[in-house]
Amino acid sequence: MTYCCGILVRDGLVMIADTRTNAGLDNISTFRKLHVFQKPGERVMILASAGNLSITQSVIGFLQEGVLNPETGESESIMNAPSMFQAAQRVGRAIREVRRIYGPGLEEDGVKFEASFLFGGQIKGRSLRLFMVYAAGNYIECTVDTPYLQIGEHKYGKPILDRAIKFDTPLNDALKIGLVSMDSTMRSNLGVGMPIDIAVTPRGDAILQTHYRIEPGEPYFHDLRERWSAALRKAHMDIPPPPYSGSNVVK
Amino acid sequence: MTYCCGILVRDGLVMIADTRTNAGLDNISTFRKLHVFQKPGERVMILASAGNLSITQSVIGFLQEGVLNPETGESESIMNAPSMFQAAQRVGRAIREVRRIYGPGLEEDGVKFEASFLFGGQIKGRSLRLFMVYAAGNYIECTVDTPYLQIGEHKYGKPILDRAIKFDTPLNDALKIGLVSMDSTMRSNLGVGMPIDIAVTPRGDAILQTHYRIEPGEPYFHDLRERWSAALRKAHMDIPPPPYSGSNVVK
Repeated sequence: MTYCCGILVRDGLVMIADTRTNAGLDNISTFRKLHVFQKPGERVMILASAGNLSITQSVIGFLQEGVLNPETGESESIMNAPSMFQAAQRVGRAIREVRRIYGPGLEEDGVKFEASFLFGGQIKGRSLRLFMVYAAGNYIECTVDTPYLQIGEHKYGKPILDRAIKFDTPLNDALKIGLVSMDSTMRSNLGVGMPIDIAVTPRGDAILQTHYRIEPGEPYFHDLRERWSAALRKAHMDIPPPPYSGSNVVK
Repeated sequence: MTYCCGILVRDGLVMIADTRTNAGLDNISTFRKLHVFQKPGERVMILASAGNLSITQSVIGFLQEGVLNPETGESESIMNAPSMFQAAQRVGRAIREVRRIYGPGLEEDGVKFEASFLFGGQIKGRSLRLFMVYAAGNYIECTVDTPYLQIGEHKYGKPILDRAIKFDTPLNDALKIGLVSMDSTMRSNLGVGMPIDIAVTPRGDAILQTHYRIEPGEPYFHDLRERWSAALRKAHMDIPPPPYSGSNVVK
């Protein structure tokens, strides 16, 4: 399992991914799922992946090395894409290329072709954008109405995003809320686990402000988890008791 | 979709169910999914259902009318079951009976046989128990380690239960936390909706303390939702900001 979220607010973009992979329940490993592609000041692109690791790693390989476009004869990577929109299309094209090569063999072995990506970033002078790319290579784009996207085990961490993330949430708050969302997911699904990779890019300059791995036991994240638990306990204790006791009013 | 949860604490049992059903996205209705069977002071049993409504309603019909046991020649309903354990088996037997009758026809039409139940209660002088019964008629029982069970859309409402429900949580608090869990689910899945049915039975006397329907706009539940939202906002605002800004420490 995996959980990744991308949050696109007025001030910039936050991407968060866990690192746990599992083949069955008895084969648990740690693999990086958050990948950064950058030429600071010219472009910064962040890719988070969920699904079959052999598929997602192959897709990343093609995105680094480039996929030949038969129409133009050009090798297309995300580092030479002229826009985020075209870069997102290239992510989709890489997925379809991997599917073309390995799809039939996987199908033969009864392995579902599962892969999804969050892909966000900015090319200097253009818009900061965030996309979710599906296994068929199609994609949706994050907008101001719902300024976040998730892949993988998305449900446990969604309520806090739904409630707390707005387009005008400050960038560092968006990171904090994203970490709370990751914490909720890790508590309820053992398939999502530490360490956690984070990347933050402010809108405008096509640079990475933060690229960091939160290791188990890291003091800030540990404190965030404790505080959030304590606050939730306090929050429900502060709600008055239900007044229904003794009601037997059923039609 | 559906969300039901049952919470079994030292002081008693809480059962909560929504009432929304949908056949596709364009056919939304309201149906009761929380059913009470009782002879006050002798037995109280509460059944919550999720899955295909025609299946779950048929199961309830069989549980009311009884299923003939070919070995004993007796018509077995849950009202004449000698124990909760045997009553849970009868729920399973009713599911298998419905499956025997309608399963092949459903399969022919490509309809999956989906049904699950929470079944809890007490027969005077015996234990208060809570079971989850699956579509195959098999079941698990709630224990003190994880004093709640859920059916239907369980993920959105699970984090708060995981954090807040302990076996020694007072009964009215368990109801309150269950309502918060229901609120979180309704916010994130439109397939779960008001009104909400609740039933509460204290451990010991085989009576129903509360059996109530919370209608849309009901003041206490409205207030609970507002307070919970406000508390969550405050909770994350009270957490200090992440200290990672500027870190670019990636191996």
